[in-house]
Amino acid sequence: MAERLTWEDFEVGTVYRSPTHLVTEDEIVDFAGRFDPQPFHLDPVEAANTIYGGLIASGWHMASLCFRLFIDSGIFGDGHVSLGAPGVEHLRWLRPGRPGDQLMTVATIADKFPHKRKNSIGFIRIHFELLNQHNEPVLSMQSDLMTRRRR
Amino acid sequence: MAERLTWEDFEVGTVYRSPTHLVTEDEIVDFAGRFDPQPFHLDPVEAANTIYGGLIASGWHMASLCFRLFIDSGIFGDGHVSLGAPGVEHLRWLRPGRPGDQLMTVATIADKFPHKRKNSIGFIRIHFELLNQHNEPVLSMQSDLMTRRRR
Repeated sequence: MAERLTWEDFEVGTVYRSPTHLVTEDEIVDFAGRFDPQPFHLDPVEAANTIYGGLIASGWHMASLCFRLFIDSGIFGDGHVSLGAPGVEHLRWLRPGRPGDQLMTVATIADKFPHKRKNSIGFIRIHFELLNQHNEPVLSMQSDLMTRRRR
Repeated sequence: MAERLTWEDFEVGTVYRSPTHLVTEDEIVDFAGRFDPQPFHLDPVEAANTIYGGLIASGWHMASLCFRLFIDSGIFGDGHVSLGAPGVEHLRWLRPGRPGDQLMTVATIADKFPHKRKNSIGFIRIHFELLNQHNEPVLSMQSDLMTRRRR
């Protein structure tokens, strides 16, 4: 049986690139209806008359998609190394995500450090960027992810 | 015709309380399947064997729901005062959201200030808390929201 991934396997400086995801109008409107029902996220016609000049995705949609693509990069292997996260710093919505965008997450391990009290847990600090098809950043954020240490 | 809400109408110190929302296992699993497919968000049986001892909601689900409930508090009136936001600071997942939780957002206007260059825009700084039925915080975060100023 293959050895499972642990905190010890992660190296500072490693960059993970996800597959791309095509954003559709339907998924923008669906997410907004559930979580962010504002005119510029819900209705292309109303959105055309806002400062955004057309439909844009909810920032919460883009942050959630960024994380999904991060997982799709394969960083967690079979998934058992990940133990969640206490939070996120510096979430920045840098430009809107729009229908037809091809988005990709680029994630870099910026740091790693052990948990202060629990020796079964180590943190990896991830710098996330969600990029569009023009290689422009749609969002960036940073999070310290908890991972399982080797026993 | 009623005057529309503008930045001038918001007062520092005002607290907005949302309706409550009952979190179901189905919606936890649905969100996780789309955006955060990890064992402790996807499958009650697998989740029971993790450090969380049972199914927990994705942190992205809880942040998105916090914002949805914030809108449901009525702070934006007909919705046209809101112009989006450049980002979020200090997003903290303080305890898991679980099936059966009754969640509510409490949002406080912590500050307000004009846009530095655009005199049509003002910011309101919101401190968000998502509370469960025991009045315990599930998450907290802060965001400077862009709003329309009076012409």
